[in-house]
Amino acid sequence: MVRDFSNDTALLSLNTATVSAQWTLEQCIDGCVRHCIGGIAPWRDKLDECGAVRAARLIREAGLRVTGLCRGGMFPAATPAGRQAAFDDNRRAVDDAATIGAECLILVVGGLPEGSKDIAGARMQVRDGIAALLEHARAAGMPLAIEPLHPMYAADRACVNTLQQANDLCDALAPDADGGLGVAIDVYHVWWDPELKVEICRAGEAGRILGFHVCDWLVPTADLLLDRGMMGDGVIDIRKIRGGVEAAGYGGASEVEIFSKENWWRRDADEVLETCIARHQTVV
Amino acid sequence: MVRDFSNDTALLSLNTATVSAQWTLEQCIDGCVRHCIGGIAPWRDKLDECGAVRAARLIREAGLRVTGLCRGGMFPAATPAGRQAAFDDNRRAVDDAATIGAECLILVVGGLPEGSKDIAGARMQVRDGIAALLEHARAAGMPLAIEPLHPMYAADRACVNTLQQANDLCDALAPDADGGLGVAIDVYHVWWDPELKVEICRAGEAGRILGFHVCDWLVPTADLLLDRGMMGDGVIDIRKIRGGVEAAGYGGASEVEIFSKENWWRRDADEVLETCIARHQTVV
Repeated sequence: MVRDFSNDTALLSLNTATVSAQWTLEQCIDGCVRHCIGGIAPWRDKLDECGAVRAARLIREAGLRVTGLCRGGMFPAATPAGRQAAFDDNRRAVDDAATIGAECLILVVGGLPEGSKDIAGARMQVRDGIAALLEHARAAGMPLAIEPLHPMYAADRACVNTLQQANDLCDALAPDADGGLGVAIDVYHVWWDPELKVEICRAGEAGRILGFHVCDWLVPTADLLLDRGMMGDGVIDIRKIRGGVEAAGYGGASEVEIFSKENWWRRDADEVLETCIARHQTVV
Repeated sequence: MVRDFSNDTALLSLNTATVSAQWTLEQCIDGCVRHCIGGIAPWRDKLDECGAVRAARLIREAGLRVTGLCRGGMFPAATPAGRQAAFDDNRRAVDDAATIGAECLILVVGGLPEGSKDIAGARMQVRDGIAALLEHARAAGMPLAIEPLHPMYAADRACVNTLQQANDLCDALAPDADGGLGVAIDVYHVWWDPELKVEICRAGEAGRILGFHVCDWLVPTADLLLDRGMMGDGVIDIRKIRGGVEAAGYGGASEVEIFSKENWWRRDADEVLETCIARHQTVV
């Protein structure tokens, strides 16, 4: 039994990427209020434009939950200076996430360093990077959510490509339930994985499902990055995955994150939000 | 220690997809002879144009090995009639593979049936389809090679997306070493997989590595299907994967299969073959 979303908007969260071509963060906040959407998840570029302190006030006044801040991560680098820069930036991300009261900081962990073909080495850098950041994140009370990305992003965005890998990292770095490290599950990245059900249960048992993101996989997909579909327009059985996630104990929101250069980014943003709500209530 | 390819062309095989925009099968055969390339792997469209019996004669006269026929598979269908059509086509593929003396028939197993979101169901159809085909393939003495495809093809081309899945299918359907079922390992599809090394060993121990295909993963990748890179132009550590495959007992050829609409398909085919040879000898 999944939770009934058929009249819900409170458990819907708008990731600002969904209307990133149309709206500033201020406009996203107003839009959520106008459409009674319960949550928001800003990307850092929008947050920086607005300013974290001001954004925190606006979000609080709007009564929105913040389902996550996108994003920290991008740990691997070719040089120690590069790794230090990533670390410094990640500390700022943790602080900004805390400022706006985010439920977690999403980690897109990064891919291969420039010129490297060593994916095993990149994965070790990710592990070391999360371990180093975790201390600061725990002090700030900000949970880190490792988001496994689809294997087509292994080279340039994230070398953590399955929920199993993310769970393994959590086991290694934060074995305790209150370790401040968990996972974010985005249906786009994991829907194909034959081990998905098993790994969702595993993440749930450890109490570490920190976020649930939705969109859809289009057939055909015209672009590796910017052709995600609206829920219901593709081939992902979103309801089934949500059922698994909820059976595993997840009680959080459903965050809509759609990168869609040629379609949803070209439409009126209010129409996009209306469609998100309709699909949230019928196919998510 | 990998085999020394630094002066080799005998262990190089040309998959006709690499020059599919430029050459017929006859021209591919002539090209291999001209460049002293030891093997060829035709796609069925090229084979049909030439005729299997005539192709068999030309290939035999040219002294080429046939490292595989591309492809059988595409098992899942929305209707019994569709599954029967796939089965009939697969029988013909087995027969054609036998006619040209192929070392294996490559199986690209197929994705979701039209209108379906049931990937678990598609995977069951694949299992049933291979099981049914196996009897005919064994009678024809034609090994079937399951090729796991990159997860970005899960919806429309192959719902077997990891070597682990392919190994599991082999264990289930052909547990004996001489069961006539194995795997083809294409670096493009598997390079990202954290379980790759383990699963290569597993396939090798069972004596079921039937093919090894190479190309490269470009950053950025402009198209999900037709933007594969020439070996050495991307991020895959091909030598390392070949080392693993050979350590697991593989002694076959290295088959170059590059779909490249905007680059290699636009070049002079002899230049493409020269480049394949140079890269085979230096980076594969």
